[in-house]
Amino acid sequence: MDPGHGVSFDERLLRARDASRELATASGDLKNAALEAMATGLANASEKILAANAKDLENGRVNELSAGLLDRLRLDDARLAALSTAIREIAALTDPIGQSVRGSRLPNGVRIDQIRVPFGVVGAIYEARPNVTVDIAALAIKSGNAVVLRGGSAAENTNGQLVEVIQDALGSVGLPSGAAQTIDEFGRDGATRLMQARGLVDVLVPRGSASLIQTVVTESRVPVIETGAGVVHIYLDETAREDWATDIVHNAKVQRPSVCNAVETVLVHAAAAEKLLPGVLRKLADSGVTIHGDEVTRSIWPDALVATGDDWATEHMSLDICVRVVEGLDEAIEHIRTYSTGHTESIITESVSNAERFLAEVDSAVVMVNASTRFTDGGEFGFGAEVGISTQKLHARGPMGVSELTSTKWTVRGTGQVRS
Amino acid sequence: MDPGHGVSFDERLLRARDASRELATASGDLKNAALEAMATGLANASEKILAANAKDLENGRVNELSAGLLDRLRLDDARLAALSTAIREIAALTDPIGQSVRGSRLPNGVRIDQIRVPFGVVGAIYEARPNVTVDIAALAIKSGNAVVLRGGSAAENTNGQLVEVIQDALGSVGLPSGAAQTIDEFGRDGATRLMQARGLVDVLVPRGSASLIQTVVTESRVPVIETGAGVVHIYLDETAREDWATDIVHNAKVQRPSVCNAVETVLVHAAAAEKLLPGVLRKLADSGVTIHGDEVTRSIWPDALVATGDDWATEHMSLDICVRVVEGLDEAIEHIRTYSTGHTESIITESVSNAERFLAEVDSAVVMVNASTRFTDGGEFGFGAEVGISTQKLHARGPMGVSELTSTKWTVRGTGQVRS
Repeated sequence: MDPGHGVSFDERLLRARDASRELATASGDLKNAALEAMATGLANASEKILAANAKDLENGRVNELSAGLLDRLRLDDARLAALSTAIREIAALTDPIGQSVRGSRLPNGVRIDQIRVPFGVVGAIYEARPNVTVDIAALAIKSGNAVVLRGGSAAENTNGQLVEVIQDALGSVGLPSGAAQTIDEFGRDGATRLMQARGLVDVLVPRGSASLIQTVVTESRVPVIETGAGVVHIYLDETAREDWATDIVHNAKVQRPSVCNAVETVLVHAAAAEKLLPGVLRKLADSGVTIHGDEVTRSIWPDALVATGDDWATEHMSLDICVRVVEGLDEAIEHIRTYSTGHTESIITESVSNAERFLAEVDSAVVMVNASTRFTDGGEFGFGAEVGISTQKLHARGPMGVSELTSTKWTVRGTGQVRS
Repeated sequence: MDPGHGVSFDERLLRARDASRELATASGDLKNAALEAMATGLANASEKILAANAKDLENGRVNELSAGLLDRLRLDDARLAALSTAIREIAALTDPIGQSVRGSRLPNGVRIDQIRVPFGVVGAIYEARPNVTVDIAALAIKSGNAVVLRGGSAAENTNGQLVEVIQDALGSVGLPSGAAQTIDEFGRDGATRLMQARGLVDVLVPRGSASLIQTVVTESRVPVIETGAGVVHIYLDETAREDWATDIVHNAKVQRPSVCNAVETVLVHAAAAEKLLPGVLRKLADSGVTIHGDEVTRSIWPDALVATGDDWATEHMSLDICVRVVEGLDEAIEHIRTYSTGHTESIITESVSNAERFLAEVDSAVVMVNASTRFTDGGEFGFGAEVGISTQKLHARGPMGVSELTSTKWTVRGTGQVRS
């Protein structure tokens, strides 16, 4: 059940670091072979994996995990197959390592090139989602990184089996199996020590609840890429098409309300509120959504609850939505500046000028025109899977795929030049 | 002397943030006009600037600053002219803002594009180098960012005059003068508050001594790009050309020993030590360099002091160099892994295989073949100037120019698509 049983915490990190040096110069073919072995290995080990998962689910029920958490924790044949598909999509991507970002010949004849290299060792701290174990490991291997996984005690049995499959896959093609390490066995202490492992871990990605992410951002001495909560907005402009407004808001709220790219607040142009809101809110209400509105909204839709100050800043993760009528684009942008977490915002409009202003002036990781905010996703963007969705501006912003797990290095080739 | 006298700390950060929103969408022409006005303004205000600088130098003498610090602090007509030249080189660069990094049309018809955007507000904490005020402000303006500068009390009078020139230049072309702010007036407290200004400052760059950088990395709640110390190595391979080895090592140590890209340690292949070292060390000794050597080196060059364990990990910033004879490339790479700060390393070799192995396996920001380590520099790389040299792997690595002061944003353009 535990791949590496009896191996100390420090030793696992050292193994990951040593393995990362081999991974860094491994060919694309070899890394893809490891991924293919991983996809096949998941299918071959499905019985063992699902048995371990059943144990975690049983423990989860005893520990009274919520239905939502239990659902995230659960694997079945279809979900395992989807993981193998994602791994094969990742294998099919262009190898980011060695790509030239830019380069030039200096006037003195020296050639400089900026090329993509792996980080080295990527750490991940997440909660109760065994699919993240596979997604992050596959993205890390593709990008030539070793990975240290802390997936949380709730999924410990499942993750143990999954990491065993990943290690076997690496070993089967001649890559060091140490490139994938789990530290679930060390509990909370392991997570704390991972955050202190500056010099052994190059970057740490927390993925999960707002409080988990906040803890990692505050406490980690290893550089962190913050993945973030989404207080996501859709602005219905004066010229919004009624059908698009209705369908996009409904899709963005109802298709999967518990995720970060689900919409939390709808802003509506005052001149279009009476035309648009009845249809938009009817479709939401029919799907069981609770409407929280400002005064004008409530004059149009009397069933709406009063939206309080806190509501506008809340990621509900549930079938609740806030609705506010604004004077126009300026007020919409100002509202977004005040309450957005910088994840995703979308405008529904027929006006080219307003679409371009929204794209330029809204300072979020993903800014959309006439599309559902649910598209902010590594899989949808063609990345195969995602490490998470970065809401910070440093290094990576938006869905993170293989490129976001790379750094760069400058190579300089001279013929004896010195500086004058 | 103080541009913004009487304006509170918080108000200055708010002004920078408001100004950053205008800068973010300013055209390349307008930003270049501001830079040209800045270059001209420096020349026009040279008398006032040099008078303020004389005051800082006088205070520095009273406070018994070292000769090195006083030299960094000093401006004269030639140095001012060099700053204007650098500003015009930056103006001549392609505008990074709006550049498309990558993009595609998804199978469902949705168009996604990753485009370069400014960070917003860039903070800089540095020491006693007025040229950094101008370099960072110019790079920030070119990349559409506002900038908050904390240049240290030793250069307070000079920086005050420089920031006034920058603000006037911005205002003269119709850009918000608030986009450049100095907080020198607030002393150490100002630096501390800048590090706490999460949400108002998007990224913080410390530039200066190792202790300054360490303080910022440890204490800042704002994301930091670490610029770093350089324990820089040159490896003389078995096939190294004698003339290149001699000239490159000499240039890398002697041309400017007090900077981070100066070499600290020379590693020599055992089979070439007797051939190479006498010439290499003679030229160094003739320039007043103190040699610290291992046992084998001292058998070849008896004047060498004994290199102690600490020496190998020390950035001397002086005319001292450490020399070690190694068995070959593997031992050289292992030594570099142990002692390098990941800044710059160079190999002198005629062997293509060894050159490529060195480039691939040495994990530093800049890895060179047959060139002086002094080339790791934004100006030399064609960036006009540099924000600093990043030794971290997240976001930026190596000399940081305008591109490194940008983030990205995804724009998504649909025609009513929802996720199924």
